[in-house]
Amino acid sequence: MTDKLKIGVIGTGMIGQDHIRRITHVLAGGEVTAVTDTDRSRAQEVAKTYGGIEVFDSSDALIASDAVDAVLVCSWGPAHEEAILPALAAGKPVFCEKPLATTQEACLRIIDAEVKLGKRLIQVGYMRRYDRAYADLKATIESGVIGEPLMFHSVHRNASVREGLYTDDMAVADTMVHDIDVTRWLLGDEVARIQVIAGKRNSVGKNLRDPILGIMEMRGGTVATVEVSVNIGYGYDIRGEISAEKGTVELSESNNVVLKAGDSFSGRVPADWRERFIEAYDKELADWIEAAKQGGASGPSAWDGYAIQVVSDAGLKAADSGKPVDIEMADKPALYG
Amino acid sequence: MTDKLKIGVIGTGMIGQDHIRRITHVLAGGEVTAVTDTDRSRAQEVAKTYGGIEVFDSSDALIASDAVDAVLVCSWGPAHEEAILPALAAGKPVFCEKPLATTQEACLRIIDAEVKLGKRLIQVGYMRRYDRAYADLKATIESGVIGEPLMFHSVHRNASVREGLYTDDMAVADTMVHDIDVTRWLLGDEVARIQVIAGKRNSVGKNLRDPILGIMEMRGGTVATVEVSVNIGYGYDIRGEISAEKGTVELSESNNVVLKAGDSFSGRVPADWRERFIEAYDKELADWIEAAKQGGASGPSAWDGYAIQVVSDAGLKAADSGKPVDIEMADKPALYG
Amino acid sequence: MTDKLKIGVIGTGMIGQDHIRRITHVLAGGEVTAVTDTDRSRAQEVAKTYGGIEVFDSSDALIASDAVDAVLVCSWGPAHEEAILPALAAGKPVFCEKPLATTQEACLRIIDAEVKLGKRLIQVGYMRRYDRAYADLKATIESGVIGEPLMFHSVHRNASVREGLYTDDMAVADTMVHDIDVTRWLLGDEVARIQVIAGKRNSVGKNLRDPILGIMEMRGGTVATVEVSVNIGYGYDIRGEISAEKGTVELSESNNVVLKAGDSFSGRVPADWRERFIEAYDKELADWIEAAKQGGASGPSAWDGYAIQVVSDAGLKAADSGKPVDIEMADKPALYG
Amino acid sequence: MTDKLKIGVIGTGMIGQDHIRRITHVLAGGEVTAVTDTDRSRAQEVAKTYGGIEVFDSSDALIASDAVDAVLVCSWGPAHEEAILPALAAGKPVFCEKPLATTQEACLRIIDAEVKLGKRLIQVGYMRRYDRAYADLKATIESGVIGEPLMFHSVHRNASVREGLYTDDMAVADTMVHDIDVTRWLLGDEVARIQVIAGKRNSVGKNLRDPILGIMEMRGGTVATVEVSVNIGYGYDIRGEISAEKGTVELSESNNVVLKAGDSFSGRVPADWRERFIEAYDKELADWIEAAKQGGASGPSAWDGYAIQVVSDAGLKAADSGKPVDIEMADKPALYG
Repeated sequence: MTDKLKIGVIGTGMIGQDHIRRITHVLAGGEVTAVTDTDRSRAQEVAKTYGGIEVFDSSDALIASDAVDAVLVCSWGPAHEEAILPALAAGKPVFCEKPLATTQEACLRIIDAEVKLGKRLIQVGYMRRYDRAYADLKATIESGVIGEPLMFHSVHRNASVREGLYTDDMAVADTMVHDIDVTRWLLGDEVARIQVIAGKRNSVGKNLRDPILGIMEMRGGTVATVEVSVNIGYGYDIRGEISAEKGTVELSESNNVVLKAGDSFSGRVPADWRERFIEAYDKELADWIEAAKQGGASGPSAWDGYAIQVVSDAGLKAADSGKPVDIEMADKPALYG
Repeated sequence: MTDKLKIGVIGTGMIGQDHIRRITHVLAGGEVTAVTDTDRSRAQEVAKTYGGIEVFDSSDALIASDAVDAVLVCSWGPAHEEAILPALAAGKPVFCEKPLATTQEACLRIIDAEVKLGKRLIQVGYMRRYDRAYADLKATIESGVIGEPLMFHSVHRNASVREGLYTDDMAVADTMVHDIDVTRWLLGDEVARIQVIAGKRNSVGKNLRDPILGIMEMRGGTVATVEVSVNIGYGYDIRGEISAEKGTVELSESNNVVLKAGDSFSGRVPADWRERFIEAYDKELADWIEAAKQGGASGPSAWDGYAIQVVSDAGLKAADSGKPVDIEMADKPALYG
Repeated sequence: MTDKLKIGVIGTGMIGQDHIRRITHVLAGGEVTAVTDTDRSRAQEVAKTYGGIEVFDSSDALIASDAVDAVLVCSWGPAHEEAILPALAAGKPVFCEKPLATTQEACLRIIDAEVKLGKRLIQVGYMRRYDRAYADLKATIESGVIGEPLMFHSVHRNASVREGLYTDDMAVADTMVHDIDVTRWLLGDEVARIQVIAGKRNSVGKNLRDPILGIMEMRGGTVATVEVSVNIGYGYDIRGEISAEKGTVELSESNNVVLKAGDSFSGRVPADWRERFIEAYDKELADWIEAAKQGGASGPSAWDGYAIQVVSDAGLKAADSGKPVDIEMADKPALYG
Repeated sequence: MTDKLKIGVIGTGMIGQDHIRRITHVLAGGEVTAVTDTDRSRAQEVAKTYGGIEVFDSSDALIASDAVDAVLVCSWGPAHEEAILPALAAGKPVFCEKPLATTQEACLRIIDAEVKLGKRLIQVGYMRRYDRAYADLKATIESGVIGEPLMFHSVHRNASVREGLYTDDMAVADTMVHDIDVTRWLLGDEVARIQVIAGKRNSVGKNLRDPILGIMEMRGGTVATVEVSVNIGYGYDIRGEISAEKGTVELSESNNVVLKAGDSFSGRVPADWRERFIEAYDKELADWIEAAKQGGASGPSAWDGYAIQVVSDAGLKAADSGKPVDIEMADKPALYG
């Protein structure tokens, strides 16, 4: 049988535990051999639940262990850099949940370290690229059948967010970042300018700045619009349409059956991101395990993590000022193609 | 049997002839009794084709004739004012093809005249309001089931336009005006600010500024985006989605059958506005005839014609400058609700 | 202006009145000049409502009148023959609501009379052929893109029928006849054998034999299935799919907008036949008026009326016996192509 | 970490190899430790490719080995019984690819053996039950929202079959069996009578009896129709609609994106069963591994295997005779619920 990738998990909160479950019960290629968490008792509990997992006192110790082939970073954003840099130093592949880091500077330090290594070791957790529908969107663009993309309309709707916990900034920094990612990825281009218009507010969210409209002008001229609505009630609705030179392509509905009852036909809208993207999470991690076994990384890179951070920061500035903000970005190292 | 409305048609070009055909062969309530055209021979030919139609030398003469109950204005835009004002003076109902007039000043003079009359006599030819799908869109909004509209995304795509004949300005002044109309109508609100972003151009249209993205902020805060693409090849595709507080509503596809062949299922996209809106044109005119018989007018008003003109003018300025343009509008007379 | 077709209406019940409304207020080409009804007061009331209509004591008198160019038969089925034969004798075009007659023998007498005339003067009211979706279905078959039709699945669902008034036989004789008509028309073939399976009953209809499944084997071998369900609650749902040698084509949903609310997206199903087929009724009559003005008839013929009657009779026998019934039909006169 | 289920695979042909790939590279819970095949060199090659797999000379030896916790039967149908009975005798869980066995008698012998054991150890490979869309179909029925099912229309279309290799009988015995399975499963009922109508043939398949229409009357009265078309060209199209007392539910299309190009919008139809059901295969086996680890079995049972065989045999007789065939079946042991 093929050997399993021995994975050390840094951060055993909700998302960390979900990845441990996935690696243990769903995917074939890896096994979790080590965990660490600033809350040691939580780490111990997780280790006990699954069995055969060693608990480490620090991410440094975990990374250094021979029981660890590759590192999965699920700690909170500000702690990502201090987990990633030692992993790179140890030459161990890293999967880092989004964001790569919480400042552009931290992102650039990580990029510098990886560039010095001369090969990619980092995959960042922008999982939409692993969704079959987004993959088909990109494949259709690349097939050339619709010609050059000229506009992209992205819609990101959540049924609800928790009052008080979800803040104005999160609509850009936590929610729209996924749209920023897929816009860059689908178009193969960087954002040149961003504008965010906050108009009439949804009374459901009280004082929350919701919805917002993001407008991104890409370097190549393609214009992308993003609707972010986070209290729309009816479900988690992710849509996207590319309008190109001689055609368009857009995400389909994701319902499996059509019901006819009452006075209409209907199809289900997913309740939340879990229902919509559960397979993309599985596929993302399977892909990482495969690449990590080969000693490398594929999927969203540290550069993507950085670029998204830059656009997100500009988006926040744009939302606050009501004015377009030009994007200034470091030069892209050759490593990132 | 009920009496027919006796209609005088000013302008017997393509659209005028189409309305004459409609009144004669399709609709029950009216009959064309009089025509006039700056090209008299064209008017005569049309009169001969149908029979029983009197040809007049001038719009003034036609309007004054007892053979004319109501006036249908199909001349070119700059000539509309000189046809409408005498009709108002004669107290005869008017259907005027869009635009109401080609300058805001002319629009205001028409409005003044109608306000002085103290009752509406003018319907302007923004026919989308008579389309069943748009009507259902509006009815759904008004039902309250989705709450207050917060965003509107409108898409206006033409398969192709004639190179050289279709100019940059027409994308706003001839094409986007329909979206401006339905945006105002669906939202029951006026535009406060407009921005037009022209990004990467469709190589099909050579140097044409195409596509463009219009962004309208309404007085009430709702934000509307409009994609206008006029050389997209695959068809005439009119789409619109209202995103509201607790739901959305959008135009369906208009295909009648689904074909499965090759490697896919498919449905037809209309080839052009005729295929998509032919029934709306019939219904628009039937509605006008009905109201005219009662001596009044319903549907898009002279105020709508003026407001659309103001926004269109601002849109052109916005497109040329690349900057948002604030909309300044006269006060709305009580006559227009 | 073009002359109107002067129409005499025999039978001023619900459907007769609806046609009078249509001719008077919707369509351009005709005018109702005469009515008659076994209930004379009803005929008088209708005449008074519209004005300018002469009331006749008998269908014979109406048919004979110079005020009548063409005859619209809306009396009850058993009275159709006695209205149609004199009209044929007078050489006046006839539109006859379905059924053509209530016995095969009566149908054949009508056919004989028309054949003797040597030209078609009768159109029977099977209006589905004028529905745009069915027309597209037929056009797709005839385009050859899917090859020869091999199977047809037709679905005919009513939201509800009136308990006690709607009987077991009506599911075949009043409801399934429309499916029999379109099956013959779409496939250009006659039915060779019919079977009707009545299985588990819908408890909503108490003891009503509902739903039923009709199975028709055509002379050319194509197999058609028909689901008739008349108390399904959610709406009036008409579906049809042709499965052919290299593809399929089916009727689309007829909704105009898509709503997202609750936890799903949804589109309206028509409430009843009026909502679904109103335009087909308009088009059917407009087409008849056009042909009648030329002194002829198009659309569903007397032969169609006869053939449907034969299959319907066999269907009733099949439903009662639970066994397949072979269809025996007279030879088709050359007049009917 | 959790222990893996040690799986011995009997039959290393195409489907056996696909399951080995699945267990090794996709799923988390099992590992292939043993293989056997009548073609020993093929078994050896497979073992070598994957590593760590022991090759056995016979299924008996494989089943007896301590290296085997559970048995996956992928040999050809006639050999299933001789693999299953020893596995039952050894108390080892079995996954058996369809069919359970090729005669009713063999199926009953297997059932007897399992009944004697007093617990289910066998899962049969009818994988549609693991498809999300079919699962949603069943869940909707069970929710009660549409009331009691009254009719079911199932459509099973293949793009093409190999001329000469695919015979008339296979349309029932290899293809329609899946529809027989889901019909029984969705309706929770057994088939009482089956009829198979073969009408006009698809010229693509030359002399092949294709398409065919199966009609199954269930004991409870629900009527199911099945279209099987195996040379339809455009794709692998699996459809199903339940028509119930107050509503319907049907399988959706499975496309991920909608393309607009040419003159239409379109969505992909799967090319083959792999594209359509790949996840159902994964889920089916994951489910079996989970149950086998607990020493039992879930999913389609030996009884299902038997019942499908009985209906399939009757279907063949019905197809040959052109007459309905009543189903006679053994009594269902309590073990199967």
